[in-house]
This record gives sequence, C-alpha cells and structure tokens, in this order.
Amino acid sequence: SETFLALRNISCGHSSPLSAFHVLCCRYVSKAAVNTQADYDYDRPLMKTQVPGPRSKELTKQMGQIQNNTAINFFCNYEESRGNFLVDVDGNRMLDVYTQIASIPIGYNHPALLKVVSDPNNASAFVNRPALGILPPESFVDKLTEGLLTVAPKGLNRVQNMACGSCSNENAYKAMFIWYRNKERGTSIPSDADLNPGCPELSILSFSGAFHGRTMGCLATTHSKPIHKLDVPSFDWPIAPFPRLQYPLDEHVRENAQEEARCLEETEDLIVKWRHKGMPVAGVVIEPIQAEGGDNHASAAFFISLRKIASKHGCAFHVDEVQTGGGATGRFWAHEHWGAEDPADIVSFSKKLLTGGFFYRDEMETDKPYRIFNTWMGDPSKNLLLAEVLNVIRQENLLAEVTRTGKALLGGLYELQAKYPNLLSRARGQGTFCAIDVCKASVRDKLILQARDNGVILGGCGDLSIRFRPALIFKEHHVHMFLNVFSDLLAAHK
Amino acid sequence: SETFLALRNISCGHSSPLSAFHVLCCRYVSKAAVNTQADYDYDRPLMKTQVPGPRSKELTKQMGQIQNNTAINFFCNYEESRGNFLVDVDGNRMLDVYTQIASIPIGYNHPALLKVVSDPNNASAFVNRPALGILPPESFVDKLTEGLLTVAPKGLNRVQNMACGSCSNENAYKAMFIWYRNKERGTSIPSDADLNPGCPELSILSFSGAFHGRTMGCLATTHSKPIHKLDVPSFDWPIAPFPRLQYPLDEHVRENAQEEARCLEETEDLIVKWRHKGMPVAGVVIEPIQAEGGDNHASAAFFISLRKIASKHGCAFHVDEVQTGGGATGRFWAHEHWGAEDPADIVSFSKKLLTGGFFYRDEMETDKPYRIFNTWMGDPSKNLLLAEVLNVIRQENLLAEVTRTGKALLGGLYELQAKYPNLLSRARGQGTFCAIDVCKASVRDKLILQARDNGVILGGCGDLSIRFRPALIFKEHHVHMFLNVFSDLLAAHK
Repeated sequence: SETFLALRNISCGHSSPLSAFHVLCCRYVSKAAVNTQADYDYDRPLMKTQVPGPRSKELTKQMGQIQNNTAINFFCNYEESRGNFLVDVDGNRMLDVYTQIASIPIGYNHPALLKVVSDPNNASAFVNRPALGILPPESFVDKLTEGLLTVAPKGLNRVQNMACGSCSNENAYKAMFIWYRNKERGTSIPSDADLNPGCPELSILSFSGAFHGRTMGCLATTHSKPIHKLDVPSFDWPIAPFPRLQYPLDEHVRENAQEEARCLEETEDLIVKWRHKGMPVAGVVIEPIQAEGGDNHASAAFFISLRKIASKHGCAFHVDEVQTGGGATGRFWAHEHWGAEDPADIVSFSKKLLTGGFFYRDEMETDKPYRIFNTWMGDPSKNLLLAEVLNVIRQENLLAEVTRTGKALLGGLYELQAKYPNLLSRARGQGTFCAIDVCKASVRDKLILQARDNGVILGGCGDLSIRFRPALIFKEHHVHMFLNVFSDLLAAHK
Repeated sequence: SETFLALRNISCGHSSPLSAFHVLCCRYVSKAAVNTQADYDYDRPLMKTQVPGPRSKELTKQMGQIQNNTAINFFCNYEESRGNFLVDVDGNRMLDVYTQIASIPIGYNHPALLKVVSDPNNASAFVNRPALGILPPESFVDKLTEGLLTVAPKGLNRVQNMACGSCSNENAYKAMFIWYRNKERGTSIPSDADLNPGCPELSILSFSGAFHGRTMGCLATTHSKPIHKLDVPSFDWPIAPFPRLQYPLDEHVRENAQEEARCLEETEDLIVKWRHKGMPVAGVVIEPIQAEGGDNHASAAFFISLRKIASKHGCAFHVDEVQTGGGATGRFWAHEHWGAEDPADIVSFSKKLLTGGFFYRDEMETDKPYRIFNTWMGDPSKNLLLAEVLNVIRQENLLAEVTRTGKALLGGLYELQAKYPNLLSRARGQGTFCAIDVCKASVRDKLILQARDNGVILGGCGDLSIRFRPALIFKEHHVHMFLNVFSDLLAAHK
C-alpha cells in the first residue's frame, strides 16, 4: 500500500545516548514495501537494556563454567524472534543485519519452515538420522532433485551432501586430490606403492586473506586472522596474493586490472614452483568475495583468468561459496556474476543452504566407495527445510528483491562515506552482500556495539570492515532503519 | 509375562535358501522380556524380497546420477521403522544389529523422541539454527547441564559441542596443540614470532588400526584401511602399535600382558623420538575399543599405563569415544571399565549422542575467543533430543539391560565359535559392543549379506570381523532372533 512509515520513532526503552541527535540527522522514510512477511515480521527494533543485558550476562557467566564463553555476544530468545528481528533474553528486539554469521536464509521462524516441522509426516526425518552414505531414506533422491539440484551451478551435475562448511571443504579437497592422482596414474586402480602409505605430496593453492574453515585441511588454506592458525600444525602449501582493489571498482578499472594481473602472474608462478618442489597443486580454492578476510572483491575477468590458469596446469578449480552462496549477492551463487561458461570444477556450500556439501563436475566423481564418506554425511531433516527455503525464494522472487534492496543499501553507504570521509571508505558490495571500511579497528568495533545498543546487529570482518549479511527477506525499509541508526551514530562520533 | 515366543516361525515371505535347515538347528527361545518398547517395536523380521529389492535398486540407480552410490546398502522407509527394526523401501523389515554405524541410541521412532519433535514449544529449535558460539539460545546452558554434563567423564568438567565426530576430533586436537604450546611458552599470550606463521611442528600420536575420522587432521591419525588415506596428503606423525591380543582375554592373560608391554614400550620410544625430531607429541589419541579397525580390545592396565606415559612426557591424553560412547559397553563410556581415577584429559563423542563434541579438563580450556570455533558449533535441536535419550536410558535402566543382553550375545557367540571352530574365532566384547572373526573376508562378507536376506542387519569391521552394534533397547529375545538366523547360516555354510 502507499502509506509511509516514519522511522524516526524507533522506540528505545532505555535512555539512548543518541536521542539528542535524532533531530539533527536526515531521516530515511520508506514506503511499506510489498512485504509478504508482514504478517509475522516485526516492524521495528525495541530496546529495553544495553546489550548484553543482565539476563544475558548471567547466562554468559553460567556458560563460562561449561565452556569458553569469550565469543558470546548475548543469549537469544529464538521463540520470540521473527523475520529480520532477533530478540534477546532481556527482551531487546534488534534488526539483524548479520544473521548468525550469514546463515539464516529467510529470517527467523518463517511460517513455511514451521510448517515443515509441525507436519507429522516429517517427524521421522527429525528423529531417525540415517547414515546417508549407506542407508538413505526413500525420499532422499527426490529431496536432492527438488532441492539442491535445482540450484546446481553451471556444468556441475553432481552434489555431495555434508554436515557443515568445514566438512564440505575438507571433502572437496579430498575429491580434488583423488581426481588429481587418478589423472596422474592414468587409472583409478592404485598400485601397492600407492596404498602404502598412500599419502602423496600434493597441495591446495589458496589466497592471502582467504577463509575456508578451521579443521586442519581447511585451516591450511585459511589466512584471514593469525589467531585462527596459532599453535596448529599446517601443510606447506602455496598462498597466492588476492588482489587488493580500489573501490568503487568502476572508478579504478585500470589500476585494479594491473593489480589483478600481478596476482594472476604470481599465482601461476607458485603453481610452477610447487610442482618443481615435488608438491604439485591438485586444486586452487577461492571465494568469489573474500568474506571473513574483509569483503575483498575481484573482477569477473580475474576469476575467469584464474580458472584458465588452473586448467592449463591441470589443477582443479574450487569455488568456496559457503558464505556467498544462497542468494545474498542477488544471484543464487556469487560466481554467476562472472558470466562464465565453465566457472568451476567444484562449488562448496553451507550456511544459508542449511546443509553443507559440494557440487562437482562428473569427472570429479570418485569411483570407489568409502573415499568421500562419514557416518552422517549431512542430515536429511536439513534437506527438507532447504527445499522449503528454495520454494520461498522462488515464490517471493527474493533474488530480485535482494538486488533491489542491495542497491538501496550500497547507495546509502556511498552517501554516508561521502558525508563522513574521515570515518568511512571503500563501500562495496553485490546485492545485500555489502561492506564498508572504518578508519580504525577500535572505531569499527565501537560503532558495531553502539549500533547493537540502538537495535541493529552488525558484524565485522577483516581488519577494518563492517559486513552486511541480512537475510534474503531484508527490504528497503529495513535498509532505511539501519541507515537511520547508523547515520545517527556517525553524527555523534567524536 | 511368562509366555514364550517360539522364534522358529520367523516369517520370510520369499523362499529362503535356509528354510531346509531350520529343523536341523537348535532353536533359541525367549521369555517375552520386560520390554517397555513392546508397544511400538515390532516382534520379528518380515522379509518380502532379497535385499536390496527392486525399489532399492531403482533408487540406488537414480542416486548414481547425483553422487557416488557405491556404498549404498539399500533405501529405507524410516517412517515405518520401529525400535530395533529397520524397514526398507521394498517392505522388508530387518532386525538392526548395526544401527546406522552405531549411531541410533534408543531405536527408530522412539515415542519419547517423536514427542520432542511434535511439541510446538520446540519448533523454534528446529528452524532457527544459531551460531552457538556467539548467540546461543536461552535454554542452551540448561540443556547442557541437564544433558551432556550429567554424563561428564570423571575429572572432565567442561564440554564443547560440535556438529559431528570428525569436527569433534579435529577441534580436540586443536585444543591439545593450543594447551601444549601455552605450556611450552609459559603464557597464553603469543609472541610475534608465534603468530607468524603460527603453525608449529607438533604431532598427535595415534595407533595402528585406529579410526578417528576422515577430515585431514583426523585422517592423519586414522589407519584402519588404506583406501581411507589413499591420495590424501598427511602429516608425519608417529603411529604406535596397538596390542594384538588373544581372546578370550581371561585365558591369555600372560601373553596379552607381554604384548601390551611391548606396545607401551614402543609408544614411549616414539614419543621420545618425535621430540628429538623437533616435532613433539602434543597429544596421544586412542579408542577404548578400536572399532572400525576390527574391534581390538586392550586391558584396563594397558590404558592406565598409557595415560601415565602420556602424562610423564607432557602429552595430553585423548580418549575417542565416538563409537564406544553412549552406553553400548554397559557403561556410558567404555573407559569407565578401566576404573581409573584420572582416565583422560579429553573425551570426544558423537553418533549415539546425536551431537558431536568433547569433554575436557579445566586446564585444556582456551582462554581466547575464536580458537575453537565455527559457525554452527553443533545444533541445539540435537541437544533437545539427546536430553530425552538420556532420560530414557535412566528411566528404563538401559545400561543394566545392555550388560544383561550383552552377556547373552557374547555367550551365544562363544557357543557358535565352539561349534564352528573352522569358521569363527575370537568372540569378544563388552556389553553388546561385541565382535567375532570369520575365517576369510569373503566368507564374512557373504555371511553378512545372507543374514540381511534373512532379516538381520550386521556390519563388518577390520579385515575379518563382524561387529555387533545394536541399539540400547536390544533385549535378550533380540539376541536369540539373531542367533537363530546366524546359526542357520553357519550350518548351511559349505
């Protein structure tokens, strides 16, 4: 409808340090959007305490008796959370622009998902977790066909389900090693020497700033923060430079192209060097947008050239879409923005897809049992929920919505960095998968905490960035809610 | 009640090759046991086709278009499965003595678990999967306290939830590496040199025949089958010999003690050797019963001595109870059979506990955030189900039942190996966690397939073993059902 929501009356129950500034700042106002989640989503944040509030602090203390509690932000009331709004145990209701590290696809307590759980026909899937690799349920082929396979990346006809992102990447690496050795030996039948001990000197090439998970194979390719790797043994695998681009990308085409050419050249050198070292690169792994490492982008041309270099040297090309996949860039997969005919040999996923796994080209299939295997290999109850998420994405045309919302978000960030050039820079993004840099880490961290106290949950990434990771049901009026809170904070910043 | 079930009339719809032998063999008959699952469990197998039947074969073929299908046994109708009986898509109903690779604790579709799923108060836990390390649900501390912490191993007051067995072991290894380096440097604050690159030369000592998972850190400690490791790079970590004991253990005390002493000595030598190599052993990992590797047992004295050797050399001691934990040995943890005051520094679990994770000693706690971390870190919906499983175990006194049932099972195996000494040997077990060896791998494999066609699901392990992994609700009359089918097969074996 055509009514307008005035967002200046965001209600903050506690005395906000920002209230004095409300009148000073421009207000974003929004049409009530075509908003199919209106019936269950909240319309605004509602703050009762600072965050974490007393109940969260008490529970965090209790948690400290049981396990490390130093990363806990606050405790949540998931029952009361709805759509784009996360409610905490102190009754604070916050606009969630971080969504459990980018892992909630269509908001909290989506009615379509609640229906899946309450359907008695589905109960068995939730209580009888099978060993999927040996004893799958009758419906599993259909659920894969109706679910994951409907979003299969171009050229990748096969999919292996796994339980989480790290397991997905670990097993994708194994699939690349196996494929590479079969190619080398010209047969999938190992010799006795192959079997004893069977562990060749092979490597995976990854990029500086990359994040691919925290188990030991993944961790050898993760370079976003030193604390992740500290004290954990690793492999001597090559690490290529990821382009450090200047933003906005379309204003720095020439410099960025030079930077990307430099990185491509160095990548190819490393592949040759590691082959000469006797530790050939079986696969190259890369994120379409480096997420944990600071939302670092590269051009379609860069990725397409990189894929060609990998192919030229006989390396598999693995695109890690654990954080970028599932629609937040406005395409289901971020790599679709490349417009490549032949984008990858393997694409791994998790988070918004609710189940982990990886898509792969026919020739990456292992021919023998128990090589890509574990007890659970995923969880069919997650595939039930995923099939419903994909239905909602299609029915509500959410990818187009994300593109529209993302334009509003990135436009707002451009305006703010123009207004506060000493505070903000490098606004960037695809769809709602956006980020902006803050002048100093301490200021970035403070802004994130202040935003939370004012009803907006944000996340950091890299050294200086704030990343935006809303659900796919985040609309323009939610962008305006965020921008109002954030611009007040910036105006108040001394 | 006192009625007797004559089990010779197990109904096999298809013409069984064994029916001619039914009259030749002794019949086990059972009292109808005190059997609280009687109201929902089936009373016997019911076979309609060979397994896999035509519908399973069709679905397996379809699965082959999507992913590797070479490990699939058959497709299941989990909706129709009940208690100890797994129903397949061709309508065959089989007594399940393998339970999804030992991962179903209290049988299929247990009413108590169905109630958890149908309770509308729990719906939110199934649809809103949180990033547990930063935004746990309000009830999570209570669920840990009512659930996992009630079964905490002696001396281990803390528990870290994880999503699966491999992630549990990977993170347990990381916890040991971090603990070891903190001890070495005398502080948890890393120097700049520590941080760059931060990956020291440390190792985990494991045992020949061990299985600890298939991700790359775990795989470096897994040695049960060469195919698991084939083509995957690994670490140069020490592998100690696991004792090769003679069974029954109480008839070979002296020889077994010598064998164990030899293994302990070699283990200590390896720890010293790897320290001299500049790759000190941060942790020793071992299964209380090597499961995948062939159900290899060792004495309590062996484990207690090993734990002392680890402590003496400053190595953490990690007991992997992924397969043994959860009650199948008649104690909740297999290591309780050692009677040790101080059994371990870390105990990892998964499978029957429905969630992965590891218990650990206070001093193994990492002091910093984001070191033992990932997006999901488990799944609170599994903790809801686990709390209910633990209630059922207590209410139905299932550990005592397992001990009773296990005696019947092992007794039956002893009888069979006495009767068929050329076919069977080395019957062994604790609780229902039993195994027996068959003269040849091909005979073992054939017996498992024949048992399945006659309504009993068994699993293999090691080179020659059949392993028994029933649910905790497996009763004496189920043992007799199995023994009747199995003794017929043995009698028929040429």
